Amino acid sequence: MSQSTPIAEILSQGDEVVTGQVADTNAAWLATRLTALGFTVVRHTSVGDRIDDLIGLFTEVSERADLVVCTGGLGPTEDDLTAEAIARAFDMPLQLDEAALIDLKAKYARFGRPMPAVNEKQCWLPTGSIRLDNDWGTAPGFAVHPSRAFMAFMPGVPREMRNLFDNRIVPHLHERFALQPGRLVTLRTTGVGESNLQERMGKRWMADHPGLVVSFCTKLPENHIKLRLAHSVPTSDDVALVKELAARIGRPLFAVEGLPPDVELPGVDVEGGSLIEVLARTLQRRGHTLATAESCTGGRIASLCTDLPGSSGWFLEGAVTYSNAAKVRMLGVDGATLAQHGAVSEAVACQMAVGIRERSGATWGVSTTGIAGPGGGSDAKPVGLVHIAVAGPEHTEHRELRLGGDRSRIQLLAASSALDLLRRSL
Amino acid sequence: MSQSTPIAEILSQGDEVVTGQVADTNAAWLATRLTALGFTVVRHTSVGDRIDDLIGLFTEVSERADLVVCTGGLGPTEDDLTAEAIARAFDMPLQLDEAALIDLKAKYARFGRPMPAVNEKQCWLPTGSIRLDNDWGTAPGFAVHPSRAFMAFMPGVPREMRNLFDNRIVPHLHERFALQPGRLVTLRTTGVGESNLQERMGKRWMADHPGLVVSFCTKLPENHIKLRLAHSVPTSDDVALVKELAARIGRPLFAVEGLPPDVELPGVDVEGGSLIEVLARTLQRRGHTLATAESCTGGRIASLCTDLPGSSGWFLEGAVTYSNAAKVRMLGVDGATLAQHGAVSEAVACQMAVGIRERSGATWGVSTTGIAGPGGGSDAKPVGLVHIAVAGPEHTEHRELRLGGDRSRIQLLAASSALDLLRRSL
Repeated sequence: MSQSTPIAEILSQGDEVVTGQVADTNAAWLATRLTALGFTVVRHTSVGDRIDDLIGLFTEVSERADLVVCTGGLGPTEDDLTAEAIARAFDMPLQLDEAALIDLKAKYARFGRPMPAVNEKQCWLPTGSIRLDNDWGTAPGFAVHPSRAFMAFMPGVPREMRNLFDNRIVPHLHERFALQPGRLVTLRTTGVGESNLQERMGKRWMADHPGLVVSFCTKLPENHIKLRLAHSVPTSDDVALVKELAARIGRPLFAVEGLPPDVELPGVDVEGGSLIEVLARTLQRRGHTLATAESCTGGRIASLCTDLPGSSGWFLEGAVTYSNAAKVRMLGVDGATLAQHGAVSEAVACQMAVGIRERSGATWGVSTTGIAGPGGGSDAKPVGLVHIAVAGPEHTEHRELRLGGDRSRIQLLAASSALDLLRRSL
Repeated sequence: MSQSTPIAEILSQGDEVVTGQVADTNAAWLATRLTALGFTVVRHTSVGDRIDDLIGLFTEVSERADLVVCTGGLGPTEDDLTAEAIARAFDMPLQLDEAALIDLKAKYARFGRPMPAVNEKQCWLPTGSIRLDNDWGTAPGFAVHPSRAFMAFMPGVPREMRNLFDNRIVPHLHERFALQPGRLVTLRTTGVGESNLQERMGKRWMADHPGLVVSFCTKLPENHIKLRLAHSVPTSDDVALVKELAARIGRPLFAVEGLPPDVELPGVDVEGGSLIEVLARTLQRRGHTLATAESCTGGRIASLCTDLPGSSGWFLEGAVTYSNAAKVRMLGVDGATLAQHGAVSEAVACQMAVGIRERSGATWGVSTTGIAGPGGGSDAKPVGLVHIAVAGPEHTEHRELRLGGDRSRIQLLAASSALDLLRRSL
């Protein structure tokens, strides 16, 4: 990480954050955005609703960082103390911002009700601050520049915070900092670990591109490779570099994000998104449909599909056949096959995929059967053994998996492996 | 929040945390634990892997708090700098802890491989520190007490961190602090919001118990009421108080945690756990089985059931019937009913629940059909309209829901409402 980039700190305010009642998702979102803009994020701090703690914290960070972004503490109630703390920390007494008050009253009027008296408090801003109009909620944000740090304050509601940051704060950052954002290109892979990806890239490849900042990030069931390119618009050399890397990684690579949309990479989606989003787009584009037959994954694949808006356009149905009786009745699995090979077997996985495909009339049938544990394993069929299959118009593909970890990890990886087998079969 | 309780701060270390690549779940877990123990948590700070930032941070907090717990930065690689930073901040030079080294080598020997040379670094601890043996991973934690704050350091891997905290650090805390932990009793409810719960409790009830610390916590699809009792073993007065509150809340209350196991509350589970855990125990106790027929929830109910180890003992099967054809073929829904009432209707929900119950042979059949959005709504059947039904040995129950929020919220609340209707039918 370069030391010459401006230093940013992130603050989150609220008792509910420091007592662990609410997980702070704002900080991770802001850290990603600030890093992409070219800031070096050195700290996040979460602090409760005590005025002396706030004043102390604001004073410290104002001398330590170039940029401070803070969420929370702008509400109308007694424990929302951010503006008051700034006023006292930097001797910027609160004063009523008339324009903010008119705007806030107009918002309430549009809902057909008068503004509660307590909300006027949200329009008292530190003297000399810059108001950040909030078109996505009630209270405005504001920014101050008391000493080293430019400090911006936003509500804690994620939707309001994200819009205020992107639309009101980022323009100020470009004006005040000589940002060299470059461009982040993300290669999304699944089915292989980080060390396998590094082998596919090759040590020489990394050594041959010393100026390139490469990082790895595991977000099960995906592994991402992030490349920081020097130019915000990729050059033809940049595109060639990504293409070469894509070729080295091969089939585990399913999507690349951050390239111009006209770049073509065989077998790879350049619109980006998760594995299921990429799959959904491919199925829709081809007018194909999907049905699922799940045993050990227990409905996870169907859930992943139906998470997506518009999934009724390509997802027909799913069967969660936990019992053998259900496998026979709902999917037409052969009782003799079950008796001979057991429910966790290649033969049963294939019959499940073919069965749901034929009965539903879908283009593709996907199946899983395995032992998710912690109980139910044996020497011959240990916990983590999973058979997956994909039945299509031409043939049926099968894979045997040996997965490690606990029940939820085995279920997650079995579901994503089945979807990945479908992707590779398309 | 009382000012007389000891002040705690939580630190998380690692570039992957401050750049937003990894969400910090350790901090929320530690905050909940520390608050329950009787500490006032005033700050969380996340900091990257730069030695000067670490030294500065450790020096600050050592004077500001009574307790500091820190996760991360204890690994074997170059960017794991915690011990080094402590050594330099408090003039406690690193020295090799022979016992830790012997222990670490023994761990590798058990895996049948030699300890890599780089791992020896993890056994160099600050002079005068207390080693915290890690039976759940490789590297030990350690604690120091340089000035005001007692400071404990743990690896960032959540499973190791949680075990080290509960087994190695908590005993030190009881020794060093006059903790008055009291006892936390949690009442878990579902299906009603916080304001509804407050109405059920009654304002007078709150006013009549001024010494009782009551807090509300929303964890969709549940709402929790937390009572902090003064005694770590509840008195008979405490139990009577909880019983009275349980009676006021009524049917939305499904579990109470923190009471002695012999307390009986009609219709309420005192073993605790989530709604599905409580349901699973009840079904198993009675030898009942369940099958699901899902449309708008798309497999979420089946997933919730099969998340639980041992679910094959009571969960038989699920049908995810997204298309009308699937509703007819897999569940025996009447085509004429579909044509007359539409898929999102009371009649179809009831036929789905009865259909899956009869075909599977389960004791109970549960169904959902609705419009999760964002598309597909109309004036007569808007987004958020969901019909749920439960078919049992004696009769079939139905509810019509009008849910707000986005697609994932509607799916989540529809799934939990169906499970809650089953709980109330048992």
